[in-house]
Amino acid sequence: MRIVVIGGDAAGMSAASQVRRNVGAAARIIVLERQSWTSYSACGIPYWIGGQVEGGPDRLVTRSPEQHRANGLDVRTRTEAVSIDLAAGVVRAEAVGAGGSAGTFEYDHLVVATGAVPLVPAITGLDLPGVHRAQTLDNGLAAIASLALGPRRAVVLGGGYIGLEMAEAAMDRGLDTTIVDLSPEPMHTLDVDMGARIRAALTSAGVDFHGDEPAREIVAGPDGRVAAVRTDRGLYPADIVFMGLGVRPRNELAIAAGLPVGDFGGILTDDHQRVVGCDTVWAGGDCTEVMDRCVGRRRHVPLGTHANHQGRVIGLNIAGGDVAFPGVVGTAITKFQATEIARTGARVAEAADFGLDVVCTTIEAKTRTGYMPGVAPLAVKMIAERGSGRVVGCQIVGGPGAGKRIDTAATAITNRMTAEQIIDLDLAYAPPVSGVWDPIQIAARQLSNLL
Amino acid sequence: MRIVVIGGDAAGMSAASQVRRNVGAAARIIVLERQSWTSYSACGIPYWIGGQVEGGPDRLVTRSPEQHRANGLDVRTRTEAVSIDLAAGVVRAEAVGAGGSAGTFEYDHLVVATGAVPLVPAITGLDLPGVHRAQTLDNGLAAIASLALGPRRAVVLGGGYIGLEMAEAAMDRGLDTTIVDLSPEPMHTLDVDMGARIRAALTSAGVDFHGDEPAREIVAGPDGRVAAVRTDRGLYPADIVFMGLGVRPRNELAIAAGLPVGDFGGILTDDHQRVVGCDTVWAGGDCTEVMDRCVGRRRHVPLGTHANHQGRVIGLNIAGGDVAFPGVVGTAITKFQATEIARTGARVAEAADFGLDVVCTTIEAKTRTGYMPGVAPLAVKMIAERGSGRVVGCQIVGGPGAGKRIDTAATAITNRMTAEQIIDLDLAYAPPVSGVWDPIQIAARQLSNLL
Repeated sequence: MRIVVIGGDAAGMSAASQVRRNVGAAARIIVLERQSWTSYSACGIPYWIGGQVEGGPDRLVTRSPEQHRANGLDVRTRTEAVSIDLAAGVVRAEAVGAGGSAGTFEYDHLVVATGAVPLVPAITGLDLPGVHRAQTLDNGLAAIASLALGPRRAVVLGGGYIGLEMAEAAMDRGLDTTIVDLSPEPMHTLDVDMGARIRAALTSAGVDFHGDEPAREIVAGPDGRVAAVRTDRGLYPADIVFMGLGVRPRNELAIAAGLPVGDFGGILTDDHQRVVGCDTVWAGGDCTEVMDRCVGRRRHVPLGTHANHQGRVIGLNIAGGDVAFPGVVGTAITKFQATEIARTGARVAEAADFGLDVVCTTIEAKTRTGYMPGVAPLAVKMIAERGSGRVVGCQIVGGPGAGKRIDTAATAITNRMTAEQIIDLDLAYAPPVSGVWDPIQIAARQLSNLL
Repeated sequence: MRIVVIGGDAAGMSAASQVRRNVGAAARIIVLERQSWTSYSACGIPYWIGGQVEGGPDRLVTRSPEQHRANGLDVRTRTEAVSIDLAAGVVRAEAVGAGGSAGTFEYDHLVVATGAVPLVPAITGLDLPGVHRAQTLDNGLAAIASLALGPRRAVVLGGGYIGLEMAEAAMDRGLDTTIVDLSPEPMHTLDVDMGARIRAALTSAGVDFHGDEPAREIVAGPDGRVAAVRTDRGLYPADIVFMGLGVRPRNELAIAAGLPVGDFGGILTDDHQRVVGCDTVWAGGDCTEVMDRCVGRRRHVPLGTHANHQGRVIGLNIAGGDVAFPGVVGTAITKFQATEIARTGARVAEAADFGLDVVCTTIEAKTRTGYMPGVAPLAVKMIAERGSGRVVGCQIVGGPGAGKRIDTAATAITNRMTAEQIIDLDLAYAPPVSGVWDPIQIAARQLSNLL
């Protein structure tokens, strides 16, 4: 059995490793990867750039090409797949650097795991020295080299997950930090009232946040490096600029091959991660769309967790299994300094789009019992369907320990629990970790009263 | 409507407050409380004794008698109910100190919330000066007074929740600390293999843990204060002794009145917290037994969370509501220094008692992504029913952030999820708070393979 995997990160390598584990030597597995690295934690790049993670890029590599090769996977780095011939079952690849492999690769099963590509605004100056992304390890190396030049002022484009994490990194590096964001409040994957709480945390930490104010131009200085970011309302001096504008599916190869993509540009698969209409082609990770179990629609949710899950499912199915990936409920978490931010399910702002008539409430509680040292405030917003009382969304902003409480809400939403049923959950209480009513249940009580 | 509540802590005051809120002035609510305090956090007492919570006992009081009175509740402190006449609908009380009220109190609804009484071993020396409990605020004041005498060596009797928390308190006070425990490993509400991990944490912190070694005698010194604890194997010098042997339902009043109690001595109620066979008598909190939803049996689970839940349910039902308390799944959490300890559902050791044929696994993972600062190891034991694959228990021992993950397992168990379904949960991932596969899911994967 010949397996070709396009993309050597979470989804691709999880799939390849599962096939290797379950099929053994009968599978010949070739992995084509554009970069020099495999299986690295892109999510860790902001912490590496900021210096919380010390050392070289290897610190973020879970498994190197050499380690994968020792595991029997034929990993070709610096090798870019440039076309797929579905009828012939062949992928053509080109070398994109020293050591890359040009050639054609026949497959019995193809795994498309091309990942995502950063969104870039239609503005000038994106290529100036000192303008950095945080998607690849090469991006990280470049940013760290720029930081060594001693910048004083950073501007971050975007106030979403990566934007916030890069703002924390810039603060960790001692830089004056400004965020300019298209959205009115940071973290537009939460409702704006919760975003306002995040803005308050940014502001109190000294970050200069500008919402509703996208970058219009990145301006060069006399030395040819970045010098400022211009918006409609201001010119913000910058010795270094970080891009945090989100990503879209890297779908060009798939589209050229005739693979189906959805409204968000992600490859469409069934619940076994098989590409719709293609018996021997599988796709997973950031290049695909995923079913939202909460609202019954496909979304683009580029997260390492799903990539790993889907890769595992692909590998098991190629190996003869019958494993479904039932989808996601939209859980995500990040933090800015001591403020944890988490969300799951549907927002109020999008409920109507999903045909949901909702009731919501926001409560303020604490991460621990009030008398314990280290206690911090947190806010929980909970959203339920009117009538049924089924909880369809939850958002949390608060101090250390606040964020992972979202898992309780995500598990409840997956099980279609009502607010009343959440009140009755048996959640863990001790003064150092919670109040006697967990904040999730305080929100459920409040919501139940409103329902 | 005349309501008499016996016991002014979590269950009793929650019930009284709910009646007040929902019935208003039409309810005349009398609360009879033996002590001087109401609505205090017994769970916080070890942290107060240890000095993490500074200040007086008021720090642990959520709502004082005066505050309850201002809310329209007729709270009689230092007043002990001594008999209940069910036929006549009358409670007789005696004063147990200055300001107490002797008298008879007629009721239309009676709420029994007498709480628990500490277990005491049948040994001599329990009354020696320097021997302390940690159940009431008066206990805490006495322990703090003892600590002011400058003890150097503490012995803690019992290695359960209170025992561990008192050991932490003793360490916080700079004492050489020994635990002597009846069970082979600390925390016998977890399986012994997980208990061994807890013992390792105790030992590495410098606590001298002796399992399978109950105290046989508390020995006095020449000054008449405690001087040592003797077991079958040793004599452990002690300037101060803390009792942490658990509790039993405070049921004497209920039994004398003819109220039904179960195998564990707790008052038996229906799922509305109405005492079985008594239309107008309700009971909640540590004096009752509670239905375990996971295994379908009653247990005695003395926890503030359940007391608060049940009190709320009682109050709503007295006010004319129709609210059930569906029971618990046996979730509990504590910590010793940086080691968090949590459990939910059935243990392997008791599975057979519940008619369960189980499979289990224990995995080792980390609290955060491995490259992040502050990462700590954790272990998750997960237990599922053979055949159905339904997860019936989970235990966690690990570093900061480990423990509250039990809520995900508790929510999954409540929803009767299988290990396979837990793998598919959409749990929150970011490097500072989790690995890309949450440890709960790593355990579920491993368990699913075994199933």
